[in-house]
Amino acid sequence: MSVTAAAGFTAAGVAAGLKSTGKPDVALIVNGGPQKVGAAVFTTNRAKANPIIWSQQVVADGVVEAIVLNSGGANCFTGSFGFETVHHTAEQVARSLGVGAGDVLVCSTGLIGTGDATFRSRVLDGATRAAAELSERGGDEAAHAIMTTDTVPKIATVSRDGWTVGGMAKGAGMLAPGLATMLVVITTDAEISADEANQYLRDATRVSFDRLDSDGAMSTNDQVTLLASGASGVRPDPASFGAALSEVCLSLAEQLMGDAEGASHDILIRVIGAANEDDAVTVGRSVARNSLFKTAIFGNDANWGRVLAAIGTTDAEFDPYDVDVTMNGVRVCTKGGPDRPREDVDLTPRRTDIEIDLRTGDAEATIMTNDLTHAYVHENSAYSS
Amino acid sequence: MSVTAAAGFTAAGVAAGLKSTGKPDVALIVNGGPQKVGAAVFTTNRAKANPIIWSQQVVADGVVEAIVLNSGGANCFTGSFGFETVHHTAEQVARSLGVGAGDVLVCSTGLIGTGDATFRSRVLDGATRAAAELSERGGDEAAHAIMTTDTVPKIATVSRDGWTVGGMAKGAGMLAPGLATMLVVITTDAEISADEANQYLRDATRVSFDRLDSDGAMSTNDQVTLLASGASGVRPDPASFGAALSEVCLSLAEQLMGDAEGASHDILIRVIGAANEDDAVTVGRSVARNSLFKTAIFGNDANWGRVLAAIGTTDAEFDPYDVDVTMNGVRVCTKGGPDRPREDVDLTPRRTDIEIDLRTGDAEATIMTNDLTHAYVHENSAYSS
Repeated sequence: MSVTAAAGFTAAGVAAGLKSTGKPDVALIVNGGPQKVGAAVFTTNRAKANPIIWSQQVVADGVVEAIVLNSGGANCFTGSFGFETVHHTAEQVARSLGVGAGDVLVCSTGLIGTGDATFRSRVLDGATRAAAELSERGGDEAAHAIMTTDTVPKIATVSRDGWTVGGMAKGAGMLAPGLATMLVVITTDAEISADEANQYLRDATRVSFDRLDSDGAMSTNDQVTLLASGASGVRPDPASFGAALSEVCLSLAEQLMGDAEGASHDILIRVIGAANEDDAVTVGRSVARNSLFKTAIFGNDANWGRVLAAIGTTDAEFDPYDVDVTMNGVRVCTKGGPDRPREDVDLTPRRTDIEIDLRTGDAEATIMTNDLTHAYVHENSAYSS
Repeated sequence: MSVTAAAGFTAAGVAAGLKSTGKPDVALIVNGGPQKVGAAVFTTNRAKANPIIWSQQVVADGVVEAIVLNSGGANCFTGSFGFETVHHTAEQVARSLGVGAGDVLVCSTGLIGTGDATFRSRVLDGATRAAAELSERGGDEAAHAIMTTDTVPKIATVSRDGWTVGGMAKGAGMLAPGLATMLVVITTDAEISADEANQYLRDATRVSFDRLDSDGAMSTNDQVTLLASGASGVRPDPASFGAALSEVCLSLAEQLMGDAEGASHDILIRVIGAANEDDAVTVGRSVARNSLFKTAIFGNDANWGRVLAAIGTTDAEFDPYDVDVTMNGVRVCTKGGPDRPREDVDLTPRRTDIEIDLRTGDAEATIMTNDLTHAYVHENSAYSS
């Protein structure tokens, strides 16, 4: 059900010819209220796509009526024509729904530089048709319409105490810090204010999407959006709602990791014993971005030396000669020296657990990443994005 | 001739059984004087191998009699036994030459964690035999003995005004900032002081090895050493010597780039129009480290969007919507928008020139890197290092 699991929302996904495959490529999600609360976090890349520039303005007042998303073209670095396309798209949706264009978010994903007149007319056509096909059961179609190299749609739902949080995500490459090439829409029928939505979303993304670092590359188009309708009539307990939102975000992030381009291992790098959480994240990310570590895991090689070489490049608080490394339950390195033989580690399962004990403090964090494989190189050299 | 091109130096390379192939794996270079000047720069990785920790102390007083290097084992994260091995190796060389162990540099390269009793006895045996085989024509054997996954030895020589600078290098992966997995030894018979040697070396590495970023990974064992004998009896013109040393370093760096593991393109990323040199380096490095850009070049895809997405992650001074990108002479992006069609770019040659004009100032820098290929993944998943 994804984005239509929560009461008050309708959605649709249509094929507008943006994808050469003819598959659905335009999604629309509409908040029927009674509240029209919206919050979003965006890529921190300074090279922001036109939809990002537009959406940052739309969400500023906390009021969002609808969000329209397309795959098949990023509308990034497409100049003023591309920005006008975003504006026209929002206006088209607004007209169809009888709302203001300034309350319509726009997201795009696909090849940078794609955003010509053909692109524009297809997006506008798709938006119009999607508005005509809105349904309370449209969540799955919407989730399909935002897929690019994704092999499966990503959806998650949590219901508690009379309210529901549901979401959809796309993203299979360029999954990186402070957001991945991902588009995520999460809806809820809980009663929350715009300020609360903003804070809940930032708290949840910080420990989920922000900890996913598939290939270190940061997209120009990333956006994670939370829409709240208040249709349940229930004001949620803050801790309960925060936990539910985090659960949905983490589930979606794990699904993104599991479908990352060409990956053969899902790697969870858990850093414990850190002086603080920032240090734990820094150390985990340095390993997640190390090409030599990532190729070693692809080769089922428990190469703990590459782990230590990676963390040695950080400024986190620890002694490189007092670090333990455990791989899939086998401690291969104790206090910066060899422990059990690397051959004892079974790296054949897809799921790979790396634990790094910095032996400095009590903080911890887990970074999600993937291995670096032949298939990754193939997909990203043969497929333009 | 490499390290024995300059007068006053002898060298040798022997096979000590550290490499399973039986190829030469221990090199020794001895400075016959009259001056015994030495300077070195080291990896900035906090996880430093035992030879690095030793060599940093040796070079502190600017006096170096000899340098012994081995491939076939990094002697990193090998505990106090590994450090003792370094100490014993320096003592063995010192005894053979009748000098002090505190004036003998030690370098190792190979698999992290390798440094057991067998390793020690083979290194000691190799050092002894190398000392017995020292020759004024031993430079080439030494260059061969430090090779790991290198397919060819790297050597360079420049002679001017009565003095000579010659060098050798190894390194084919983990070529990264602030030094690569590289061992480099450069010798000269010019008359220079220890302070001068140190400054000359830092100036030259800053614009050569420090601008080589093959895969973003930083080694635990990197060391670039300059030895000066003064045997020419000529005190060089500073500008002329600096230029000659830079020429040798740049030649060796280019040879490292050309032999990087699995690469099919040598990529020179020239950043112009920067506010300052640091910005130019930062922008160039962000592109050099972007896996999506590197796979696109492997796929002969002039994907300028990935260039802009990479530089957008930096804090350098520029406007992402006022940047030009030229690939192999074809300007594909003007002011952050499409220019000539990407299909016009011929990326089939191995050498690939990327020019990024930040249109902000007059500074520039060139970063050397490689593409990300199937062969890179294969070498680094199948070969432990």
